[in-house]
Amino acid sequence: MSEPHATLAEEAAKLDAADELRAKRAEFVLDDSDNDSDSDDSDGTVYLDGNSLGALPAAVPARLADVIGREWGRLRIRSWEESGWWTAPERIGDRIGRLVGAAPGQVVVGDSTSVNVFKAVVGAVRIAQARAAAGEEPRDGTRGGSPEESRGGTRDEILVDESTFPTDGYIAESAARMTGCTLRPVPAPDIAAAVGPRTAVALVNHVDYRTGRLHDLPGTTAAVHAAGALVVWDLCHSAGALPVGLDAHGVDLAVGCTYKYLNGGPGSPAYLYVAREHQPRFDSPLPGWNSHADPFGMAPAYAPADGALRGRVGTPDILSMLALEAALEVWDGVSPDAVRAKSLALTDFFLRCVEAYVPAGRVESVTPAAHQERGSQVALRCADAGEVMAELIRRGVVGDFRRPDILRFGFTPLYTGFADVERAARVLAAVLAEAPGEVA
Amino acid sequence: MSEPHATLAEEAAKLDAADELRAKRAEFVLDDSDNDSDSDDSDGTVYLDGNSLGALPAAVPARLADVIGREWGRLRIRSWEESGWWTAPERIGDRIGRLVGAAPGQVVVGDSTSVNVFKAVVGAVRIAQARAAAGEEPRDGTRGGSPEESRGGTRDEILVDESTFPTDGYIAESAARMTGCTLRPVPAPDIAAAVGPRTAVALVNHVDYRTGRLHDLPGTTAAVHAAGALVVWDLCHSAGALPVGLDAHGVDLAVGCTYKYLNGGPGSPAYLYVAREHQPRFDSPLPGWNSHADPFGMAPAYAPADGALRGRVGTPDILSMLALEAALEVWDGVSPDAVRAKSLALTDFFLRCVEAYVPAGRVESVTPAAHQERGSQVALRCADAGEVMAELIRRGVVGDFRRPDILRFGFTPLYTGFADVERAARVLAAVLAEAPGEVA
Repeated sequence: MSEPHATLAEEAAKLDAADELRAKRAEFVLDDSDNDSDSDDSDGTVYLDGNSLGALPAAVPARLADVIGREWGRLRIRSWEESGWWTAPERIGDRIGRLVGAAPGQVVVGDSTSVNVFKAVVGAVRIAQARAAAGEEPRDGTRGGSPEESRGGTRDEILVDESTFPTDGYIAESAARMTGCTLRPVPAPDIAAAVGPRTAVALVNHVDYRTGRLHDLPGTTAAVHAAGALVVWDLCHSAGALPVGLDAHGVDLAVGCTYKYLNGGPGSPAYLYVAREHQPRFDSPLPGWNSHADPFGMAPAYAPADGALRGRVGTPDILSMLALEAALEVWDGVSPDAVRAKSLALTDFFLRCVEAYVPAGRVESVTPAAHQERGSQVALRCADAGEVMAELIRRGVVGDFRRPDILRFGFTPLYTGFADVERAARVLAAVLAEAPGEVA
Repeated sequence: MSEPHATLAEEAAKLDAADELRAKRAEFVLDDSDNDSDSDDSDGTVYLDGNSLGALPAAVPARLADVIGREWGRLRIRSWEESGWWTAPERIGDRIGRLVGAAPGQVVVGDSTSVNVFKAVVGAVRIAQARAAAGEEPRDGTRGGSPEESRGGTRDEILVDESTFPTDGYIAESAARMTGCTLRPVPAPDIAAAVGPRTAVALVNHVDYRTGRLHDLPGTTAAVHAAGALVVWDLCHSAGALPVGLDAHGVDLAVGCTYKYLNGGPGSPAYLYVAREHQPRFDSPLPGWNSHADPFGMAPAYAPADGALRGRVGTPDILSMLALEAALEVWDGVSPDAVRAKSLALTDFFLRCVEAYVPAGRVESVTPAAHQERGSQVALRCADAGEVMAELIRRGVVGDFRRPDILRFGFTPLYTGFADVERAARVLAAVLAEAPGEVA
C-alpha cells in the first residue's frame, strides 16, 4: 500500500470541502442518514451505479404527485394543452440540448434509445444517399474519397463501433437490412481511418459502456465528414458527465438515454438530436402522427413537421417524461465543464485509492489513464468479478458487474463525493483480501 | 322532444341503481363531489372523453409514490430484479391479454402504438413472405387465391383501413416502403373482399376512432386468412370496452394503446400481441437488446428470445409501465361481457336522450345504430362542432371535437353512469338551443 488510509481519508475530506458542486448532493435522495437494513455498514450506501440508473432527484416525487393527482386526475384531457403535455418532448429536448451543446430546436425526447438509434441510422442513411444522388460534395473534401468517387456514387455501408453497447449493433443491423446497406463493425478508434466513399453513416459510442473509454468525437466526426458520410453519436455514457459539444463539432445526429447521468428515472425516455442543417432532409422511418405538420388535422397523407419534432413518433409517455423534466432541474446553474473537472478528479482519486489499498495485481483497470480517453467510470478487470460485486453490494458499495470479469464503478459528479470514493476503494480492498483470486 | 326530462332522469336513476358495475366508479378519481372552478355546473364534470384519456384510477397515486420513493429512490438499480421491473412488460402484457382474449405469453407492453404498428406490420409481412417462399399453403384454402397462385408467389401488398387513425396509415406506408411492398387503402368493411393472393398483411382498426364504428373482426380475419394473408388489428378503441377474442378468432397480430379504456395514464405504453403460432417466425424490425435471448450476455450477435418478449425493444419505461399496472387492478373481477352490455346500454341511452332533447336535424349520429357495428362511443355530426364542444366543456360535459364537424363522446363502462349520460344530452341540447346552426 503506497498511501495509508488515514492520509487518503483526510485528503478526501479536503477535496469534498473544496468541491464547488458539493451542495448539489442535497438535491438527491441518498442514504447518508439512512439505516439500510440490507447493508452491514452504518455509513449507508455508496452508490456508484449512476451510469446504469441515476439516483432520485429530490424534486421528482412531489412533481409526479402533482402530474398524477392534478394534471391527470383533475384536468385530464385538458392537460395536453393546459399543462403543456403536448409540447414536452421539444421543451425537455431543449433542456437536454444545453447539456450536450445543442442550440434549441434540435433535440426531441421520446421512445427508447434503441428506437432512436433506428430513426437516426435510417435517417442518416437516407440523407447520405440523397446527397449522393444529388451529386452534392462532402462538406469537407480534404480527405476520404475523391469527388469523383463520391459524386453520385453509392453510399451503402454503415460502420458501427465494434465494441458498442449491443442494442446499437442489433438495431444498426436491422437498419442496414432495411435500407439495403451492409454493416461493418470497426473498433471506434479506427473509424476515422475506415470510413470510405461508400460509407453512408458511422454509428459510434461517445463512451464505451464496458471500459469507460472516451472516444474522439471531434476527430472522428471530422474524418467521417471528410469522407462525405454522416456520423451518429450515442451519448448514453457521456451526456451529463462531460461536455459533448454537438453543435461545436458539427455532429450530424445523436441519441442518448436519460436515466444514467441525467437521472431521469428507470427507463425514462431517450432523445434524438438532428442537426439543424439536416432537419429538412430528415426522413424518419417511424413517421408517427406526432411528427406530422398538422397532427390534429388527421390527414390521411403524411407531411412532416419542421424542426426537431420531426423526430417524434407516437403519443409521448407523459409520466416518465415529466419525471425527467423535474429531474433535469438539478442542472440549473451547473456547467458541464465543472462536472467534467470533478468527474476526472473523482476517477483519478478512485484509481489512486485502489492502487493504495488493493494488493498489486489483484485488479487491473481497463479504463484509460489519459484524461482525454476517460469517461466518468472506472472498470476494473477482476477474477470472480460477479462474486466480488455481490459482496460489495452487501457491504453498501453499489457498482455493477459486466460479464465476464468487469467491476464497473460510475461516478456521478453531482452527488458522488470523494469520501464515497475512498470508502468504496477501502471496502473493495477488504472484500478482495478475504476472497483470494487473480486477475482473470 | 319525444320524452320529457323527468322521465329520462328517472330512468337513468333506475338504470344506475341496477348497474352491476356501479361500485367500480368509486375506484376512480372523478369530480362528483368536487367544485371545479372551471365548471359552471355544481354537479361537477361528466367525463365522456375516456376514449382519449381514461380517468385516473384511485390506486395509481400511492403506487407511483412507492415506485418513485422506495423502488427508485431507495433500492435504485436493485429494483430491476427485486421489484420486478425487468419482467414488467410480459407480466402486464398478460394482464391485458385477459381483457382482449389472449392466453398468457402473447402480449408484451412497451413503446407507443405507432412503434408497435411498425413492428407488427413489418413482422407480419416477413411472416407472409417467409410462408410464401416456403411454399406453405394458407391455413384455410377455401377462398382467395388458388393454391397455385399463392404457393411461392409474391406477397408484396399491404392493405390498410382507409379511414384509419392517421398514424397507422403513416407507419404502414413506411413499413411498405422498407419491405418493398405497396400500400393500398381500402374501407375496412371491404377488406374481406379486397384481400388477394398478393396481399401480405391487412392492417385494420377494430373500432373507427372517428365514427365509433365496430368492424367485423371475426369475419375479416377469416377472409384474410382464406387468402393466405395475415391481419394486424389495432385495438386502441376497443380494448377495455368490449370483448375482442384475439385467440378465439385466430388473429395473427394486434396492437393497442393503454390510455383510453384501460386508463393507464397519458401516453402510457402500448402493447403488441403476436399469436403463439407466429412467434417463432416473428422477425422484429426493432431488435433491441431487451428482445435478446440473453440480454445480459451483451453478445455482439443478435439472437431473439422466444415468446412474447421477442416484441420488446429497449429499456422499458418503468414509471409509466407501473402506473399502468396499478391502473389495471380495477379490472379484477370484471368480465368484458358485462362491460360490453353496459357500454351498449350507455350508448343506446345517450342516443335516446339526444333524440328526446335535441331539436330534430340539429345533430346527426355517424355511429351505427346496430349493436354489432357500434363501439363504445357516439359521434355526432354538428355544425360549429368546435364551438359547441368548447361550450360543453365550459359547462362540465367533456367530450372531444374531431375536425371538421364531429362531437365525440366516449362511454367508459367502469365509471360512466346513466345519470351522466342523461345530463350530457341535456346540456348538449341547451348549448345547441342557444347556438343556432344546422347539420353541416
